[in-house]
Amino acid sequence: MVRESEIRDGELTVDMPPARDAGLVFIGRIRTPWKSRLETPRQGRHDGPVCRLEIFEPWVPAIKGVDFYTNLEVIYWLHLSRRDLVLQSPKNNGNTRGAFSLRSPVRPNPIALAVVELRKVEGNTLHVVGVDCLDNTPLLDIKPYFASTDSIPDARVGWHADRKTDTSR
Amino acid sequence: MVRESEIRDGELTVDMPPARDAGLVFIGRIRTPWKSRLETPRQGRHDGPVCRLEIFEPWVPAIKGVDFYTNLEVIYWLHLSRRDLVLQSPKNNGNTRGAFSLRSPVRPNPIALAVVELRKVEGNTLHVVGVDCLDNTPLLDIKPYFASTDSIPDARVGWHADRKTDTSR
Repeated sequence: MVRESEIRDGELTVDMPPARDAGLVFIGRIRTPWKSRLETPRQGRHDGPVCRLEIFEPWVPAIKGVDFYTNLEVIYWLHLSRRDLVLQSPKNNGNTRGAFSLRSPVRPNPIALAVVELRKVEGNTLHVVGVDCLDNTPLLDIKPYFASTDSIPDARVGWHADRKTDTSR
Repeated sequence: MVRESEIRDGELTVDMPPARDAGLVFIGRIRTPWKSRLETPRQGRHDGPVCRLEIFEPWVPAIKGVDFYTNLEVIYWLHLSRRDLVLQSPKNNGNTRGAFSLRSPVRPNPIALAVVELRKVEGNTLHVVGVDCLDNTPLLDIKPYFASTDSIPDARVGWHADRKTDTSR
């Protein structure tokens, strides 16, 4: 459920330590049709609109060869997200889950990841399908997608009887 | 080819801008068997050793529910990598490719991504298979892996006749 920044029943915030263990440089920006969080999709869709990754100098030469791949991993920075909410209630019903078990934009380091289809490259701009963010979202990295290591078609969601888990803490 | 930090024929460095567009917090560390870059594998292997993701406070509550998934995306920080090398020659033969077309650790923001299999959770520690980094590598984020959006089994590598590409710049 999309929201601004209110806290829901059962949720837990922590005192956020200073985020200065390492520093990021924005290598570009993502141009999408979405101007507010309320209209932005929750996940990128492979039948969604073509969006543009605009690369800034001095990083433009680093795109040489990206058109060798049909698919790319796009890593970006959700600059509007709060970072201190460790337990979250996605359905606002008092049931909570940890930030690391959700694809929520709210996380200690609001790094987003989308697997996109590359349509074409023009100058400093990549045309892609599959991102899910606001227009002008800062871009952090682009990587080739390899089916051999990145594709797990039989990945499952649900409780697994064969899994040893100690959640007694 | 593993190397320390020398520049090869044809490679291009840029003046690295200050990396302060946003700040990261290390949420934990990755424990692996590898103590030097020369012995660290180039990609995580699904038949590799079990490694441990140790989560630091105050982030430990954020792992609640991760054992709902067979597979996770692990995002980490390659703290030893240089960041200014935009054109790279992986085979050291004068042929170069851009950092964004390689899975090299050398990139403007040295963020690494591995799709891992979750074996078990014990206290603040996740036991996983599939990372490819030095022991004590800083951890940035953990996300559930969804086959529906993250698995592209037919992603291809190679030049694509159906792709419109202007690389004339």
